[in-house]
Amino acid sequence: MTESAMAGGVGSEATRIMLGVNESTINGYPHASISSKGAFEWTLKKIIRSNPSGFKLLFLHVQVPDEDGFDDMDSIYASPEDFQNVKRRDKIRGLHLLENFVKRCHQVGVACEAWIKTGDPKEEICREVKRVQPDLLVVGCRGLGPFQRVFVGTVSEFCVKHAECPVVTIKRSAEETPQDPIDD
Amino acid sequence: MTESAMAGGVGSEATRIMLGVNESTINGYPHASISSKGAFEWTLKKIIRSNPSGFKLLFLHVQVPDEDGFDDMDSIYASPEDFQNVKRRDKIRGLHLLENFVKRCHQVGVACEAWIKTGDPKEEICREVKRVQPDLLVVGCRGLGPFQRVFVGTVSEFCVKHAECPVVTIKRSAEETPQDPIDD
Repeated sequence: MTESAMAGGVGSEATRIMLGVNESTINGYPHASISSKGAFEWTLKKIIRSNPSGFKLLFLHVQVPDEDGFDDMDSIYASPEDFQNVKRRDKIRGLHLLENFVKRCHQVGVACEAWIKTGDPKEEICREVKRVQPDLLVVGCRGLGPFQRVFVGTVSEFCVKHAECPVVTIKRSAEETPQDPIDD
Repeated sequence: MTESAMAGGVGSEATRIMLGVNESTINGYPHASISSKGAFEWTLKKIIRSNPSGFKLLFLHVQVPDEDGFDDMDSIYASPEDFQNVKRRDKIRGLHLLENFVKRCHQVGVACEAWIKTGDPKEEICREVKRVQPDLLVVGCRGLGPFQRVFVGTVSEFCVKHAECPVVTIKRSAEETPQDPIDD
């Protein structure tokens, strides 16, 4: 096989795969959601395989400001600094989430980058796709039925429609689905 | 890097990628549509890269019986055998379409299989996904606006919703889009 016959030869630029990852609704930070982990493992196993140098993974974690505040209903905020501290703490939690993915990449030998954005996950993911222009976006999804989907909003469906790059959504397997399928 | 650290190590089974391919609306058989070619080239360049032994491509071409008949409005059918001949000729045209993809795979050194089904493309693709259970389905799409989509029906959208495996749709680039975007 000649080099020219190979469409993606050794000399060509790495395929850049963006992964949207979030925290577990059951275990919270720094644990990744079941669907995020599934999407990551699928990418390693089925796409990257034994060719880590051919790929670069871009991890994006979007923090939802209001939702995070909800966990903290019992806290007392006495000064502007208290709010700053909460924000800082959330950021640190997000970093711990990303750290685990980055560690795993280093074990496997695949290059990666990871960063945090704040806002609406589906919109931030599409905005970052536009900015970063990955070759592929991989998003995990819970694989909910139509009735359940209405209540949780589906980041993956939005990305399939609006992200300006090829998108693949990876559904959780039946064995991985928690008792309440809304959990992740 | 140890073998165990690699999720998809050398010893693991090849990633099976199914590609739905169809003929060009402009040039007819045996020419593949622009979007089919785009999906195939994307798969080679961005996913398979320099690791052909890690993958197996499964090409499915679905022939639409009525649509093919339409090309032939001027023919005269005088006996049942005439219809048999048309069917045989269509099948041969479909085989020529697939032959080009299979040839390219052999050049690149990636294993492949190719076969033809008759029926409604979106339904046949989903049925074959269910039967064959690939790791990923890649479908090209024309990237039409919502108004144009209504008239042509979108195989890719249907597959994203209904195929029982991860699906990625590859849009044609602006440069590849013909003057009439319905053409492919």
